[in-house]
Amino acid sequence: MESPWDELALAFSRTSMFPFFDIAHYLVSVMALRHKPGAAAMAWKNPLASWFTAMLHCFGGGILSCILLAEPPLRFLANHTNILLASSIWYIIFFCPCDLVSQGYSFLPVQLLAAGMKEVTRTWKIVGGVTHANSYYKNGWLVMIAIGWARGAGGTVITNFESLAKGDWKPEGHEWLKMSYPAKVTLLGSVIFTFQHTKHLAISKHNLMFLYTIFIVATKVTMMITQTSTVSFAPFEDTLSRMLFGWQQQFSCEKKNEAKSSSNGTGSLASKPADDSSDKVKKKHAKKTE
Amino acid sequence: MESPWDELALAFSRTSMFPFFDIAHYLVSVMALRHKPGAAAMAWKNPLASWFTAMLHCFGGGILSCILLAEPPLRFLANHTNILLASSIWYIIFFCPCDLVSQGYSFLPVQLLAAGMKEVTRTWKIVGGVTHANSYYKNGWLVMIAIGWARGAGGTVITNFESLAKGDWKPEGHEWLKMSYPAKVTLLGSVIFTFQHTKHLAISKHNLMFLYTIFIVATKVTMMITQTSTVSFAPFEDTLSRMLFGWQQQFSCEKKNEAKSSSNGTGSLASKPADDSSDKVKKKHAKKTE
Amino acid sequence: MESPWDELALAFSRTSMFPFFDIAHYLVSVMALRHKPGAAAMAWKNPLASWFTAMLHCFGGGILSCILLAEPPLRFLANHTNILLASSIWYIIFFCPCDLVSQGYSFLPVQLLAAGMKEVTRTWKIVGGVTHANSYYKNGWLVMIAIGWARGAGGTVITNFESLAKGDWKPEGHEWLKMSYPAKVTLLGSVIFTFQHTKHLAISKHNLMFLYTIFIVATKVTMMITQTSTVSFAPFEDTLSRMLFGWQQQFSCEKKNEAKSSSNGTGSLASKPADDSSDKVKKKHAKKTE
Repeated sequence: MESPWDELALAFSRTSMFPFFDIAHYLVSVMALRHKPGAAAMAWKNPLASWFTAMLHCFGGGILSCILLAEPPLRFLANHTNILLASSIWYIIFFCPCDLVSQGYSFLPVQLLAAGMKEVTRTWKIVGGVTHANSYYKNGWLVMIAIGWARGAGGTVITNFESLAKGDWKPEGHEWLKMSYPAKVTLLGSVIFTFQHTKHLAISKHNLMFLYTIFIVATKVTMMITQTSTVSFAPFEDTLSRMLFGWQQQFSCEKKNEAKSSSNGTGSLASKPADDSSDKVKKKHAKKTE
Repeated sequence: MESPWDELALAFSRTSMFPFFDIAHYLVSVMALRHKPGAAAMAWKNPLASWFTAMLHCFGGGILSCILLAEPPLRFLANHTNILLASSIWYIIFFCPCDLVSQGYSFLPVQLLAAGMKEVTRTWKIVGGVTHANSYYKNGWLVMIAIGWARGAGGTVITNFESLAKGDWKPEGHEWLKMSYPAKVTLLGSVIFTFQHTKHLAISKHNLMFLYTIFIVATKVTMMITQTSTVSFAPFEDTLSRMLFGWQQQFSCEKKNEAKSSSNGTGSLASKPADDSSDKVKKKHAKKTE
Repeated sequence: MESPWDELALAFSRTSMFPFFDIAHYLVSVMALRHKPGAAAMAWKNPLASWFTAMLHCFGGGILSCILLAEPPLRFLANHTNILLASSIWYIIFFCPCDLVSQGYSFLPVQLLAAGMKEVTRTWKIVGGVTHANSYYKNGWLVMIAIGWARGAGGTVITNFESLAKGDWKPEGHEWLKMSYPAKVTLLGSVIFTFQHTKHLAISKHNLMFLYTIFIVATKVTMMITQTSTVSFAPFEDTLSRMLFGWQQQFSCEKKNEAKSSSNGTGSLASKPADDSSDKVKKKHAKKTE
């Protein structure tokens, strides 16, 4: 006999994403596209390119995971129902008379509902990616993490490459490195679900899905209400970083410092901030001389 | 018993592309490469890179369709006969003494013949792509259109990426969006052949191939003789665009316009030209301040 | 009965790359990454991105060959032992207290040993790539050359694309064209091993592996000791280039020269240097006016 909680989690984990959660996902994705400068004008001038970009925004994670597993990147086009759904939403958002949808979407409760439902699809995607990767590589847990991550948050990568090809996006080293909040939370989820899948976490899948979904929905809604663009994982990251990479700083490196003064500081570890800034200076210098 | 017309079309649809039409295709492709600034000098300095670029120009569509279906992009290298043919043509064009081929090619009739024959290969490629995609995804008509399109006109995409990697090509949002004439006519053909393949068009395949080929060859030759760089699909496109996207403009959006004056016009639909130009101004502004 | 030489070569060709040669390869690859400006600071700020870049440096050739054969590019992640080895080396190099590894690596004998052992893995990779490609395309010798080349020297291509995506690397037409020394020597090896595999070279595989390895190790060590960055293949290349592409210059092209004076020299072959420089001038001009 199962507890009511278990039953609830089980029922939740069997919820179908199609159609309502998928609609929310497409709505949020296409609205994000729409709010980019020039997107509305582009849709008028070249509807086909705009539609293509919208599809990349909607199905980007799936495309990236297909590329990484050497499956046809076009496979998403074979799912006619979802394409039709996404296309309809793209059509309504960009071409609805009087821009009704955009106006409706500007109400905060609508946005909260859509964003919350979109986050639910993220859990399903991560789980799908992890399971799918497992069918390729038994116990290849690194691949499982990567595919779960790609499917859950890979849309950004695909759309960034699309912007790069269009020339809209000038990448900068530092931006590429900084992971966005969704990327971080998806990575976390991907790791957790992979460990669950390889039986290293003693929790049933439906419970984990339920808890993780509650966590990401709650975080997302909080972020939107409080207008903060990121929930900081900073303390957690700091601890982990200090555990993994910081213990060396205890050592006194006199030999090192002597070496450093002669070799002009390439690769100093003990004096991170100084090194960091000197690197920046060097870079600026290099750019100026170019 | 078949009519003479049917027999003609059938015989035509059984014509082998190899070797004469393939030669014409390689000739036109490599001559297009040759006329790029710096190509001749590059062939002397680095024949291998020049050969590689020439192969991309000749087999680009096939490579792109391979990538999209997750087949080995290198497969074209396994067809030794065609590689040998294309390489010979590359060699003759770039290294022929006294530049005889280029001079021969500068006569209009030769160009017309080569360009016309190249257009014939386009039909064969579209049909091949559509049929091939159908073997992957039964009734996946979107995939069929995409693969037919990629194989018929995908060379441009591949060569653009090659230029991007070389740094020769600075992409701009607007150029990427504008489809060239071959891209448009190939898309049209791909759509038609897909509908024929899925039995939505009551015309036999060989008749359709014959008609479509006549159409694209005639258009191409006309374009070359009259020196226009594009045959305008403008009236057709305008009608389609107005049917699909223009009907909303009939609505009077007073509420919208009020909203617009307050929200500073992000995403106005009814007043497209104004929006468009303001977007452009914004972009220019953004570039200047960078 | 086999000669001692044969026995030696056979024993050598059966040496396992794992773990020592692999370690040397990872060590050299990650040290190359480490010496890039900003790499040490980046490892502190974003260990995950640094780790990912390090893996690309270590497994780049394999990834490229996977992409070219439409195999999952993530497959390298499934080999946990090698990933663990590479990750450990990355960790030690970037986070070792007092930077001991970097200091140890700065001694020339250590560098020579590591670089020599890395070159040995190159032979194994080329042979592996050629054999693997042969299992796809029987007698597809062009594919075999390409895959052997990609696996042996493809890391540079992958890391260049990574820099491109990061915005660190502004590609220039001329740099892309110039092949580095490892690319050249790997191409040579790939051609030789392919011909051996298709029985066009009457030498046993283990002998060829032994000889080729001795050649590349000796060249590499010589280059490092004499501080030259390249062993010049120039005489060999010149001869080949003159044989293949230079014979046309004997012809007197009076007709050509007349044509040239009128057509302003697009595509002159007989007068290469002039053409070359005028092309450069044109390019500079174009850049200035942009």
